[in-house]
Amino acid sequence: MSVLSVDLNCDLGESYGLYKIGNDEEVLKHISSANIACGYHAGDHNVMMETVKMAKSHGVKIGAHPGFPDLHGFGRREINMSPREIYNLTVYQIGALSAVAKACGTKLVHVKPHGALYNMAAKDKLIADAIAEAVMDMDSELVLFGLTGSWLVKAGEEKGLKVAHEVFADRNYQPDGTLTPRSSANAMVHDEEIATERLLRMVREGKIQAVDGTDLEIKADTICIHGDEPHALNFVKKLKQALEYEGIAVGKSWVAK
Amino acid sequence: MSVLSVDLNCDLGESYGLYKIGNDEEVLKHISSANIACGYHAGDHNVMMETVKMAKSHGVKIGAHPGFPDLHGFGRREINMSPREIYNLTVYQIGALSAVAKACGTKLVHVKPHGALYNMAAKDKLIADAIAEAVMDMDSELVLFGLTGSWLVKAGEEKGLKVAHEVFADRNYQPDGTLTPRSSANAMVHDEEIATERLLRMVREGKIQAVDGTDLEIKADTICIHGDEPHALNFVKKLKQALEYEGIAVGKSWVAK
Amino acid sequence: MSVLSVDLNCDLGESYGLYKIGNDEEVLKHISSANIACGYHAGDHNVMMETVKMAKSHGVKIGAHPGFPDLHGFGRREINMSPREIYNLTVYQIGALSAVAKACGTKLVHVKPHGALYNMAAKDKLIADAIAEAVMDMDSELVLFGLTGSWLVKAGEEKGLKVAHEVFADRNYQPDGTLTPRSSANAMVHDEEIATERLLRMVREGKIQAVDGTDLEIKADTICIHGDEPHALNFVKKLKQALEYEGIAVGKSWVAK
Amino acid sequence: MSVLSVDLNCDLGESYGLYKIGNDEEVLKHISSANIACGYHAGDHNVMMETVKMAKSHGVKIGAHPGFPDLHGFGRREINMSPREIYNLTVYQIGALSAVAKACGTKLVHVKPHGALYNMAAKDKLIADAIAEAVMDMDSELVLFGLTGSWLVKAGEEKGLKVAHEVFADRNYQPDGTLTPRSSANAMVHDEEIATERLLRMVREGKIQAVDGTDLEIKADTICIHGDEPHALNFVKKLKQALEYEGIAVGKSWVAK
Repeated sequence: MSVLSVDLNCDLGESYGLYKIGNDEEVLKHISSANIACGYHAGDHNVMMETVKMAKSHGVKIGAHPGFPDLHGFGRREINMSPREIYNLTVYQIGALSAVAKACGTKLVHVKPHGALYNMAAKDKLIADAIAEAVMDMDSELVLFGLTGSWLVKAGEEKGLKVAHEVFADRNYQPDGTLTPRSSANAMVHDEEIATERLLRMVREGKIQAVDGTDLEIKADTICIHGDEPHALNFVKKLKQALEYEGIAVGKSWVAK
Repeated sequence: MSVLSVDLNCDLGESYGLYKIGNDEEVLKHISSANIACGYHAGDHNVMMETVKMAKSHGVKIGAHPGFPDLHGFGRREINMSPREIYNLTVYQIGALSAVAKACGTKLVHVKPHGALYNMAAKDKLIADAIAEAVMDMDSELVLFGLTGSWLVKAGEEKGLKVAHEVFADRNYQPDGTLTPRSSANAMVHDEEIATERLLRMVREGKIQAVDGTDLEIKADTICIHGDEPHALNFVKKLKQALEYEGIAVGKSWVAK
Repeated sequence: MSVLSVDLNCDLGESYGLYKIGNDEEVLKHISSANIACGYHAGDHNVMMETVKMAKSHGVKIGAHPGFPDLHGFGRREINMSPREIYNLTVYQIGALSAVAKACGTKLVHVKPHGALYNMAAKDKLIADAIAEAVMDMDSELVLFGLTGSWLVKAGEEKGLKVAHEVFADRNYQPDGTLTPRSSANAMVHDEEIATERLLRMVREGKIQAVDGTDLEIKADTICIHGDEPHALNFVKKLKQALEYEGIAVGKSWVAK
Repeated sequence: MSVLSVDLNCDLGESYGLYKIGNDEEVLKHISSANIACGYHAGDHNVMMETVKMAKSHGVKIGAHPGFPDLHGFGRREINMSPREIYNLTVYQIGALSAVAKACGTKLVHVKPHGALYNMAAKDKLIADAIAEAVMDMDSELVLFGLTGSWLVKAGEEKGLKVAHEVFADRNYQPDGTLTPRSSANAMVHDEEIATERLLRMVREGKIQAVDGTDLEIKADTICIHGDEPHALNFVKKLKQALEYEGIAVGKSWVAK
């Protein structure tokens, strides 16, 4: 009998030069996959090296977290680029982090686009295809992380990549399966008990209640968590306990597609 | 009987966004190794992709050309960094270009530091060691290019890398084997006939006459040429003819150390 | 009797470090206003200083050409920013160029947003207002250049600024007065004779024939020209001759609103 | 009878995009002059605008804090540049912050170079002259801050600028008046009581005991303090109390040269 499992992922290595963001050392104790910035929207060659070493020492899987070349906007601003250019920048960033991983005696397990690139890849088939193609061309064993049900995971599956459907711990869903926009009053799930219950149900039953009360089918291979505030970190600890209490293993082997 | 051979290398892929530098398509017809900028001092993910494709289609070997993160100074300004940071930025840039090469169905053959990093690695053992270590950690088959007789080639040899002693087509040498500084009146060899004669002698006899008239032992595995001016490109054509006329093959197999 | 006049403007000072763009010295012989890049989408402190000096020595009026902070995209990619941030970056760039002008013993006459910022300011009232407010807060004597009939010139007029309605030498117009999109087959006017005739009519009669044959009212205070190709430069020379032959002075005093 | 006074200055506005550094709101309660980063080594157009507003609302004088264009190195790495380029980048940055100040209804009072530029200007007459010339060309009323006794203050005085001799609250001095290098074991004065006593003596008597026990003449117009740690901030509070207890006013009018 297979054991239920779910991956917990978090963005890491977002510091830059003297500028520090996040609480990486602490977050690494609680997650199974680290999305490491690659020097475009955040991170630099020094931060990448330190972060990969830290993740390795905590036994946390690492992945590339490519973003737009926009440090000032932290990769959160949409920039119009051709799919060809998005392919190129994805290749570049995966390559840079792969080399850092090699220098540390480890290797990448996954790729998850960052910020505006993630959002655009969810909605835009051409961008999704460009990213999936870049990942495949780099290493067909890499797991592509994308918003559950998005163009990005479809593109990955089409290319023959392993994909991870990603869900968010604290967000509501529309009847069509998309995230309730942040501009809506009910975008977020603030109650931690409820958020935990919803996550457990997604993992066990593959279902989530949308904002209109209907039940949606949803895949939840990996949960995106935040760790930059004491509050957020505390929630992660509780979520992990709840998962373990329910017999759900934290972490994925990614062996089967 | 082994045939004499020498590599001709040139810096390529130095354009950035809309900014164009060089005459890459034309230069590629005349060289055997292309040093491709990796996005730090010059180049970007698009330029790198195009340049690797072009080099491949011309049968020219490609190498990473890592430099300081200083686009405004084109990597020509010395920046004080720890050997650890130089190791990290070398790894990053080799990784980025390796990925681009992989996407193009080819791979890197060599690494040559750029500009101020090249000069600092020639004189500073710690920097030389950091670069050689980074190259070795990435791929022990990579050939490290450095100024002939410099700390950089020594560091490469010590690590067990294949190295290429590099000479310059148009520079004079001091009695101690270093380049006559550009600040000196006789830094350059302007006469093309003389420059060609000197290069032929370096390749065939391993000797060069220093500015004081004494003969120096010198290794000349690869010749650095420039191709961004009609004049420079014309010299390269003549040099190539002269080499071939003398039975010296252009290009290296780099098989033996 | 007032003499008809029209300003000829061109983007200048777009080089960056070792990267050269344009033919500024030559273009300056033919224009009356230079839009000088301010270090965000192009230009740097050295290029700005040289360009202002050159423009001054040619008796050409200078203006700030603020753009998005996107050297790699040359300011041509739309970036979502709040009006507040657009106000801030406009202030910053006008200030930087004003200081350079002061160091050269001259001062700014106008401001023209660049690339994507120009296009967004034409269509988006909030962005137009932010730019006009920034210009007014810096110096109420500055002339704001914007696409003829656009939100930007309206915003400038509303704030009490002098504005210059800008037309393009080589573009067709839609019946509603907007530029025919570049994606359309008939976006451009390629025939130089026709282009010249159209410009003369815009200046003298304030009219232009739209792509559907109808006549539009149009204001033409300043004509945007290009000077980076021999062909373009040649057209400017001919246009200038035609204007002078018709008794239209090149250059504006901008005294009256 | 004139009242003794001394200025307390601190570096502010060093955040960048999402990256936060410092505790500006708190520090502003305790200082009389704020050195505001200008977007080269730190800061951006948004941070500059907010910081100037905050300083104004606290009645703190503002000054430009120009640095090398090196966000990754935070302006702390020496970069070789010609005096001409240093003049240009100083003009650019003063201009950018002046415009921001104008937008906020205030103006700059002083200029203090940052990090490596400050250190190089202390030791190198050509760099000192370039900065002093840039300040003078921008506004002859600006006060130039430099290390006490350095080339920078000499250059400022020679140009006819008001200058402020700057001392450090926690550093030891060599017999020749230079700072004891940070590489020396006794570079720092760790004891707050002793540091306070030394500062009081510098302000009142113009004297400081060097590391060899000899007494040096020293000018102390402004004291550089740090505010990014609770410890540092606490020291500033105590120092201010001690100054006031001794009848020394915090803040300078800079009226007389």
